[in-house]
Amino acid sequence: MIATFSTQDLDFKSRFGELLKRGAMDICNVEERVKNLLYEIKENGENAIVSHIAKFDLWNPKNLEELKITQDSMQQAYESLQKPLKDSLQKAYERIFAFHSKQKPKTWLDFEENGSILGQKVNPVDRAGLYIPGGKAAYPSSLLMNAIPAIVAGVKEIAVCTPTPNNEVNELLLAAMYLCGIKEAYKVGGASAVGMMAYGCGSVKKVDVITGPGNIYVATAKKLVFGEVNIDMIAGPSEIGILATSQARVEYLAWDLLSQAEHDEMASSILITPCEKLAKEVALKIEECLQTLPRKEITAKSINERGAIIITKDINEAISLMNEIAPEHLELLVENPLEVLPKIKHAGAIFIGENTPEPIGDYIAGPNHTLPTGGSAKFFSPLGVEHFMKKSSIISFSKQGIIELGRECGILAHTEGLDAHRNSVLARLEDKNKE
Amino acid sequence: MIATFSTQDLDFKSRFGELLKRGAMDICNVEERVKNLLYEIKENGENAIVSHIAKFDLWNPKNLEELKITQDSMQQAYESLQKPLKDSLQKAYERIFAFHSKQKPKTWLDFEENGSILGQKVNPVDRAGLYIPGGKAAYPSSLLMNAIPAIVAGVKEIAVCTPTPNNEVNELLLAAMYLCGIKEAYKVGGASAVGMMAYGCGSVKKVDVITGPGNIYVATAKKLVFGEVNIDMIAGPSEIGILATSQARVEYLAWDLLSQAEHDEMASSILITPCEKLAKEVALKIEECLQTLPRKEITAKSINERGAIIITKDINEAISLMNEIAPEHLELLVENPLEVLPKIKHAGAIFIGENTPEPIGDYIAGPNHTLPTGGSAKFFSPLGVEHFMKKSSIISFSKQGIIELGRECGILAHTEGLDAHRNSVLARLEDKNKE
Repeated sequence: MIATFSTQDLDFKSRFGELLKRGAMDICNVEERVKNLLYEIKENGENAIVSHIAKFDLWNPKNLEELKITQDSMQQAYESLQKPLKDSLQKAYERIFAFHSKQKPKTWLDFEENGSILGQKVNPVDRAGLYIPGGKAAYPSSLLMNAIPAIVAGVKEIAVCTPTPNNEVNELLLAAMYLCGIKEAYKVGGASAVGMMAYGCGSVKKVDVITGPGNIYVATAKKLVFGEVNIDMIAGPSEIGILATSQARVEYLAWDLLSQAEHDEMASSILITPCEKLAKEVALKIEECLQTLPRKEITAKSINERGAIIITKDINEAISLMNEIAPEHLELLVENPLEVLPKIKHAGAIFIGENTPEPIGDYIAGPNHTLPTGGSAKFFSPLGVEHFMKKSSIISFSKQGIIELGRECGILAHTEGLDAHRNSVLARLEDKNKE
Repeated sequence: MIATFSTQDLDFKSRFGELLKRGAMDICNVEERVKNLLYEIKENGENAIVSHIAKFDLWNPKNLEELKITQDSMQQAYESLQKPLKDSLQKAYERIFAFHSKQKPKTWLDFEENGSILGQKVNPVDRAGLYIPGGKAAYPSSLLMNAIPAIVAGVKEIAVCTPTPNNEVNELLLAAMYLCGIKEAYKVGGASAVGMMAYGCGSVKKVDVITGPGNIYVATAKKLVFGEVNIDMIAGPSEIGILATSQARVEYLAWDLLSQAEHDEMASSILITPCEKLAKEVALKIEECLQTLPRKEITAKSINERGAIIITKDINEAISLMNEIAPEHLELLVENPLEVLPKIKHAGAIFIGENTPEPIGDYIAGPNHTLPTGGSAKFFSPLGVEHFMKKSSIISFSKQGIIELGRECGILAHTEGLDAHRNSVLARLEDKNKE
């Protein structure tokens, strides 16, 4: 059974504290190992990569060339799809593309009366690396969610890496690559893939940004190469938080909590409600629904060990606890969502109302499904077009502009002891005075 | 003398390669040490912090309480400023505030015809930590450039940390704190400050984001805590790149290169021009101007060891090399800046025309002076309001919305083997069919 407790319980603080710590990954335990793998990639390049593949993916490529995934194989996989699936993928592509197009930041300029110009220029990165998990848990939706923002950003070179245990590439992933027009993809996973993309190797050039989900080895490798490249975030197990009031349908709540739990034994599913009756009914309904699931074992372990239903004294207490949790996914199944929404400060994505089950956002709604986990929604944003773009400030002063501000700039520079700074400005002012 | 070479030289590739590697910091050498310092802060909190201060800043606080900088001392410092300096700081504050207000991202919603709603909600982080270097190299401008974006973002709690060797706080920094309305500041620097802000300690709560410049220890500590908090970037020594054509004034170029060099022996000042005559004249002028500088020694070392003038065959070759360099600051002293600007892909800030010396951007123009260094302008952006805010996706489906997309979503979920996902959507569809 899912753990159910109340904010009135004596041990509430410690139980809630456990939920807040849900995201803590033991990166320490794998860090040394990942660091060594990355070092090997940096030093020995191709040789290190093929030997890591032999060890972890259990097949023996001779060189980098053998890691390339051909565009033919992508096209073939796409064309073999059954029509309903092909249509669904196409629909998902279009909606994700449309949403991300709306987030694309624009270059702007602002003109001052004296003729000076200030602004921000936005450019895509030159080259992006997408890490997509492979093998049995290969999700074509992950490829769409990582590739489309890069495409919308205008990134010219997109490289995909995915592990292929026993040299088997997931056909759905191949089909998704074709749909996204991927031209460069490699059969390599884990820390080796992150290292290859971050440092470059042979004909595979260094990328500027690495995005995409992965296990703790991938997350650790991304953290270690951060700074040499940009990364999207350091993601942990998936999670859902639901705020519900008495009118919410028990069946929906049960399925939505389970849909998160089935991802992973480490996933967290948390319902917070002021309605004790609802809490009890949902706990029972979860047990009932669980029995029907193919991934029953994983799902039950996640629900029993990391799930929770919390009963609060009112909706405001529920909201405030949810803000502390800062869940990756947040469902609002409350009576007055428009009263609750302004109070939501921290969540990766907010799903409003009973017609918006969280899975609709995983696949087809349009917004990205790569979201900050473990409470990092307090400071990270969903993956988006901005992860594949960066800004340059623009400053263009007119003669009048430098005359108006040069003297004050010189005072500040001199105060900080930086006289070449001051002189660089004064040189302009003196010339203006002479004119 | 500054090194001068041409793209036609036989050893050009290797010399240019050295410039591309300018940003490589040997984080490896200090990483173990910084990791230990952070571990001590995490485990021993207050005791570790005061013992680090005794060791590195050479004074002996008894507890955290003694580290607090009072608002009285800030006010006193501000009121003691001479009027011209006070006015200059005020002017800088206003212009930086105005520029950053224009970058503030807004929540947006988009309505579909079927009544579904998609969008993005933008919220400030709850609490930000600003690291400001202290001692002799304390720059009040750094405080303005870090605090103002946080203020514009609407961050409710802003904590400042600055090292105070021998327990002496820089008066200018105190004055700047008063100007920015800082209410919480601590006399602690280096990795200890980063650790205190990232983990929290006693009454000092954990922050959500840490920004601000610092030496290699601070940069390394920021990298290590990334993920537990967000950080702005990992910044190295300062640098300028100048693109100039024959009309550019030799004196301006010399001062602008020197103004970067005076920051730091590790700073890089690079001029790229197709005009050989200009190149030679600038090299001579630099020698002349150098003699007059109080920070002559540092400046000369930087210019001689890390400066460069590159002569290209034409302006397009110059632009393409500069994009590879991706300098922190880029000046365009070219004949047709509007023809060059669209081709600039990578730079922290772009200064256009002879009336826009780089130092104007350090203090008073308005855009942030915290900029990506060492080529990381290929993927990082200037510090801005967005570093203190984060986004949540918003999804609200109407009945019609879930009817139109639910089936396709179910197909995708089932294809990925996630049946609770599918069931969560189907539960809604079945109810709709019954209605």
